Amino acid sequence: MSKGHVVAIVSGGLDSVTLAYHLADTDYDVSLISYNYGQRHDKEIEFARLCADRLSAEHFVVDLRAITSLMNTSSLTSDDIEVPDGHYAEETMKITVVPNRNAIMINVGTALAVSRGYDFVATGVHGGDHFIYPDCRPEFIASQAETLRLANAGFISERFDVLAPFVNIPKDGIVTIGDAIQVPWVETWSCYKGGEIHCGSCGTCFERREAFELAGVEDPTAYMATPSFSDPR
Amino acid sequence: MSKGHVVAIVSGGLDSVTLAYHLADTDYDVSLISYNYGQRHDKEIEFARLCADRLSAEHFVVDLRAITSLMNTSSLTSDDIEVPDGHYAEETMKITVVPNRNAIMINVGTALAVSRGYDFVATGVHGGDHFIYPDCRPEFIASQAETLRLANAGFISERFDVLAPFVNIPKDGIVTIGDAIQVPWVETWSCYKGGEIHCGSCGTCFERREAFELAGVEDPTAYMATPSFSDPR
Repeated sequence: MSKGHVVAIVSGGLDSVTLAYHLADTDYDVSLISYNYGQRHDKEIEFARLCADRLSAEHFVVDLRAITSLMNTSSLTSDDIEVPDGHYAEETMKITVVPNRNAIMINVGTALAVSRGYDFVATGVHGGDHFIYPDCRPEFIASQAETLRLANAGFISERFDVLAPFVNIPKDGIVTIGDAIQVPWVETWSCYKGGEIHCGSCGTCFERREAFELAGVEDPTAYMATPSFSDPR
Repeated sequence: MSKGHVVAIVSGGLDSVTLAYHLADTDYDVSLISYNYGQRHDKEIEFARLCADRLSAEHFVVDLRAITSLMNTSSLTSDDIEVPDGHYAEETMKITVVPNRNAIMINVGTALAVSRGYDFVATGVHGGDHFIYPDCRPEFIASQAETLRLANAGFISERFDVLAPFVNIPKDGIVTIGDAIQVPWVETWSCYKGGEIHCGSCGTCFERREAFELAGVEDPTAYMATPSFSDPR
């Protein structure tokens, strides 16, 4: 029996694709929502669409570029700023943060859920993101869910919640979960640089490679380069 | 001395234009943000722009039509659904609600505030809206402010709050406040029907007319018709 209908926020990355498969595997009806916020490339959204196809799920793509163009400093949305290499979890990576992004994505996903009579919104935020992203922390998720229940009282499903099953799990834990349900890893995209294949060197590629290594799961991803994790960055 | 810099959400209506004048009058630096969510007419945003000009304030206009086009039932966004006449505060008017709209507008305004280093976001929600709009209630505003502080911890002004000075004031109280600071009422727009002048008969026109009458302030608005408040609706 279905646990309810969930709008899953899926970027096409490893975490959010695993989220969608995990929700489907645990008996939710799933619809996918993806956001175009001015990424430099469309690869992510193509993989989100493929995920929806595999799960025979609805897929909504929402153009948020009008919002992100308001902001003036983000390497995710501007061609003028070079993407830094290395780990996210460094002060210098703050440049990649679009302010309040997760909250906006959850709020728009909730609007969709309310309009369709669906029960939940789900996000793939995970434990490894807590360090610099405040909007990936469990206390934010809980507060956001309560705010949304208040904002939509009388219109929202009585079961409504913001599902964040990975919020206390590091990225390698997501690989372990995805491995058990045979997530097609080659149909996920992490690289910030929109090449033909993953670069292997940027922050998200590093984290992706590290997650497979820590999980002890074979990484089927094709990388341009695989610099050592211990090299000075 | 300035109390801080606030991003005021201004639709061009009576409430939000009064909000902007009130904030400027009470020593805030004010920037305006307006949302295009697929209204049937551009009159509101023109009046928001005029308000920004009068206050020599920045004005940002953000196109949210990609979000509202996701929704399938709203007389604000679809030409297929007739705008009902009469009071908002009736069950049949629920059709005019775009789900989670105030939360989305506050969240986007906060993203702008964070990206510019501004201190506050302000909304013109007022006491008269509580009856059917859960996202106009004080408990929502307080919860939303706390959620935003958590979502943007370390990036947001330490003074951050969602200012909603009219949240416990009925619409006629806003007219009283605006009258004292000489808000140019003819430069505000309430009518849902985008005619040359206010229709005088739709829900928002009724509320506008009633607010002036209750406040005992002369209403300079030109109306197509002024049906009696006591007529059966």
